[in-house]
Amino acid sequence: MKKTIVGITVVGKDREGIVAEFTSFVFEKGANVEKVNQNVIKGLFGMYLEVSFTSKINFKKLDLDLQKLGKKLKMGVSTHSEIHLQKNIALFVTKEPHCLKEILSARRTLRGKISVIVGTKKTLGSLAKKAKIPFVVVDERNQEKAEEKLLKVCKKFEVDLIVLARYMRILTPNFVWRYPNRIINIHPSLLPAFPGSLAYAQAFERGTKIVGVTSHYVSEDLDQGPIIFQDSFKVAPDDTLESIKKNGQKLEATTLLKAVKMHLDNKLEVRWRKVHTKSK
Amino acid sequence: MKKTIVGITVVGKDREGIVAEFTSFVFEKGANVEKVNQNVIKGLFGMYLEVSFTSKINFKKLDLDLQKLGKKLKMGVSTHSEIHLQKNIALFVTKEPHCLKEILSARRTLRGKISVIVGTKKTLGSLAKKAKIPFVVVDERNQEKAEEKLLKVCKKFEVDLIVLARYMRILTPNFVWRYPNRIINIHPSLLPAFPGSLAYAQAFERGTKIVGVTSHYVSEDLDQGPIIFQDSFKVAPDDTLESIKKNGQKLEATTLLKAVKMHLDNKLEVRWRKVHTKSK
Amino acid sequence: MKKTIVGITVVGKDREGIVAEFTSFVFEKGANVEKVNQNVIKGLFGMYLEVSFTSKINFKKLDLDLQKLGKKLKMGVSTHSEIHLQKNIALFVTKEPHCLKEILSARRTLRGKISVIVGTKKTLGSLAKKAKIPFVVVDERNQEKAEEKLLKVCKKFEVDLIVLARYMRILTPNFVWRYPNRIINIHPSLLPAFPGSLAYAQAFERGTKIVGVTSHYVSEDLDQGPIIFQDSFKVAPDDTLESIKKNGQKLEATTLLKAVKMHLDNKLEVRWRKVHTKSK
Amino acid sequence: MKKTIVGITVVGKDREGIVAEFTSFVFEKGANVEKVNQNVIKGLFGMYLEVSFTSKINFKKLDLDLQKLGKKLKMGVSTHSEIHLQKNIALFVTKEPHCLKEILSARRTLRGKISVIVGTKKTLGSLAKKAKIPFVVVDERNQEKAEEKLLKVCKKFEVDLIVLARYMRILTPNFVWRYPNRIINIHPSLLPAFPGSLAYAQAFERGTKIVGVTSHYVSEDLDQGPIIFQDSFKVAPDDTLESIKKNGQKLEATTLLKAVKMHLDNKLEVRWRKVHTKSK
Repeated sequence: MKKTIVGITVVGKDREGIVAEFTSFVFEKGANVEKVNQNVIKGLFGMYLEVSFTSKINFKKLDLDLQKLGKKLKMGVSTHSEIHLQKNIALFVTKEPHCLKEILSARRTLRGKISVIVGTKKTLGSLAKKAKIPFVVVDERNQEKAEEKLLKVCKKFEVDLIVLARYMRILTPNFVWRYPNRIINIHPSLLPAFPGSLAYAQAFERGTKIVGVTSHYVSEDLDQGPIIFQDSFKVAPDDTLESIKKNGQKLEATTLLKAVKMHLDNKLEVRWRKVHTKSK
Repeated sequence: MKKTIVGITVVGKDREGIVAEFTSFVFEKGANVEKVNQNVIKGLFGMYLEVSFTSKINFKKLDLDLQKLGKKLKMGVSTHSEIHLQKNIALFVTKEPHCLKEILSARRTLRGKISVIVGTKKTLGSLAKKAKIPFVVVDERNQEKAEEKLLKVCKKFEVDLIVLARYMRILTPNFVWRYPNRIINIHPSLLPAFPGSLAYAQAFERGTKIVGVTSHYVSEDLDQGPIIFQDSFKVAPDDTLESIKKNGQKLEATTLLKAVKMHLDNKLEVRWRKVHTKSK
Repeated sequence: MKKTIVGITVVGKDREGIVAEFTSFVFEKGANVEKVNQNVIKGLFGMYLEVSFTSKINFKKLDLDLQKLGKKLKMGVSTHSEIHLQKNIALFVTKEPHCLKEILSARRTLRGKISVIVGTKKTLGSLAKKAKIPFVVVDERNQEKAEEKLLKVCKKFEVDLIVLARYMRILTPNFVWRYPNRIINIHPSLLPAFPGSLAYAQAFERGTKIVGVTSHYVSEDLDQGPIIFQDSFKVAPDDTLESIKKNGQKLEATTLLKAVKMHLDNKLEVRWRKVHTKSK
Repeated sequence: MKKTIVGITVVGKDREGIVAEFTSFVFEKGANVEKVNQNVIKGLFGMYLEVSFTSKINFKKLDLDLQKLGKKLKMGVSTHSEIHLQKNIALFVTKEPHCLKEILSARRTLRGKISVIVGTKKTLGSLAKKAKIPFVVVDERNQEKAEEKLLKVCKKFEVDLIVLARYMRILTPNFVWRYPNRIINIHPSLLPAFPGSLAYAQAFERGTKIVGVTSHYVSEDLDQGPIIFQDSFKVAPDDTLESIKKNGQKLEATTLLKAVKMHLDNKLEVRWRKVHTKSK
């Protein structure tokens, strides 16, 4: 019989005994522990526990029991499995429409449903309306409160995949750890070169002759998550910062869409912070 | 009854199922899993598993069984516990004698025994001889072979703590992961400033007015392990690179010794890559 | 006869022939060129030209002629010399009062006059009022406009030295190049460790056992200018981020004041990006 | 009449008055100063002085006079002008033949003459012999002595351009400053990503999906000189480190050759550390 893989994320205030509680729990359920890692940043504890079952499991029941355990220990718990057939997608945006437009125009071809669009501003609301997709504005300046709201939205729409389509805010570990390898971002440089928010300007200033973009999973380290795809173009002698940006944005849109499709088609696998394309 | 903590390191070629095998093993022995982390660098797998027992355990038996499991899976396994009363210390050196001398002169006051001194050259052999401590030269240029020999020496002398007393070679994860928080180094700068091998020269070139040294546990990231102690001195207007080095070396010796003592006195605890001094 | 040193800064849009115009000008005036450097960042040209005269010069006349040349070439020109006996000081502040207070309380002992205090907010205006020093608020969000205003203020008060007393905005080359080695900042870390705006939090997170502060001249590279003074304190096992900040702020105030005094007493000399204390 | 541009480099022990001596000298000769920059690293002074003449000059005479001045001041002086019709090229190599071969096979098409090949080992001597080009081995371990020999070789062959065709040693400012924008290197990554000697391995380890190479002028900052050309290829899912290296080496050869040609055809211009392709 095929193994069923279940991913469990546990996030909350660092406290003793959390690892023991959750690993004991899954052992009692007859699971094998495939991966476990813990991390603490500024007092916030995050654990990713990947377990496998060789016998049939009741996923709903398992999730409910894990939620109960989470409540008892005051930890936020999420359970992820590959059982869902239709994936729910949330698009996070700010002002730039090019990536959003590209994904919306291709949405009939996606193995997933765009369930909600979240904006830091109202700017792109009309695009959402036209596509008949719920649009939620989360514009809290306070990072903690903003992420609380984002988590609620994601829970409400049972989101499986978050796509940052030129979303111009940083997400903290408190958010990111709950969606391991389930958040895809597009960055306007060939990472690891030019991380941060001024990538095109820095590449232009440095005089690079090739400029590119990177789609990647989001991890707790800004712009350092596993790379999914990269694409690039050559800089011509008469290119300006503006023409480079314009070329770049086209590539951002297609590269992000490509990464999202591959993810939804289950073609990507992350092993030790590196993305591998599955062979058939 | 007090909990007994046992640390288990597993290092070897990355292969599926290793985590499951070891976590299942300790569960069957009635242990709680307190911490688990895995890492892979260039195909080398490393796991640190910290478990606790609330009932009495036969440590020798546990270790033997783990060794058997390791052999079966072709993984190198080490078991560490706080049961040893007298710790065995290995000093790793190259040419500079000042740190070695300081530690040797204080050795009657250490809660541990300097069981072996390992040099990359013969230079400091005479100091070892005078102190009647075995001296082993490991001067292999090939890093892999050198570490194999080092591991053999450490096994032979049942080493609990490795002190890098100005040891001028880099240790790879294959070595470091087997001695988690059991290797202490002295670095001639106030880390994280000036990592690498030219610390004094860089500080002088940069014109810093305070120069210092750092004793730290060694992790897989060069010069980035948990900081134990730091000490510093002010640069005078007429200081030269030479006078700075001279002052620095005195501080290296005392700061390294201080860290070693604190470790042997069980006063240090590493939580999430940060060293805490235990309150009594 | 003693040499008279004059520093000339030229800042403006990059255009051909600027270096030739200014070097020719000073040669015709009989000056020797002691140092010349040019730099361009994002199309902005900056030149620092240091010349010496061995015969007596009319500094006022020289400055006027240079201003004329600047106007003709559409470049901003400033002339600096050591002739002024009483230096005019501008203090730049934001919200934190500790450095401002320390300098104000010592102002009778300074070889200079605090001519103006500039705030990004009104917060510290009352301290200025009590000290009977003009207080100007420059709170423009637009960096270019803000610096234009700052330059006007500095011109109006004939400022010779700018002290950043926990001024929480970045200054661009367009401002900095006009005051070479005439802007002093205090940074809450032992630079080059922990540049940027989160220095204490990063040091605490990293677990450093020594925390310090750095006063330095401001150059076009953020937090990388020549170091004037550094001071430090040891972190105790029970220190929190808050207690570290509190200790740090005291040190910021005294270290900044010390640097300002040394500058005003003509004890500092910058040679190749490194500060030397002059021997008498 | 067209301007004649002459570049003058002055390198030697830092001493007062050097800038004044050389700028005064060229002024007296009727030149305009187009650019001047000085730098000091570890006590070594380097100046680049670019001057223009609008009347006809005797370049030989100018060079001789500058050499005399250099001797008097104990500074090494080189004079560069665009007057030479046929450029002398030195190729610096180590063991890898692919870049050397590519350049040798194209040598009839170059606007220059490969006057000498310098190796750190004998390995590639046979290729030089076959091409009937003098081959010199400079294998000194001591960096200072090695560069002294290299300078002698370059002087003897009146070298105008140095091509580092996988030359695996670092050149210090003492060498580099004497050949400003006259040394071309090939680096196996898309700089500024992955500087240093392990570029392919790091790119592979990081999981980048695009790998490339960079030809650039060599400056005093390792792998940070002005970028001339870059080229890249996509990484396939089944690529190994070995296949990536193989693909990369082909690109190294063609990209280096392209840069060398552009330089010899006078199509490149460096303005403020950025390479511009000249429009005709």
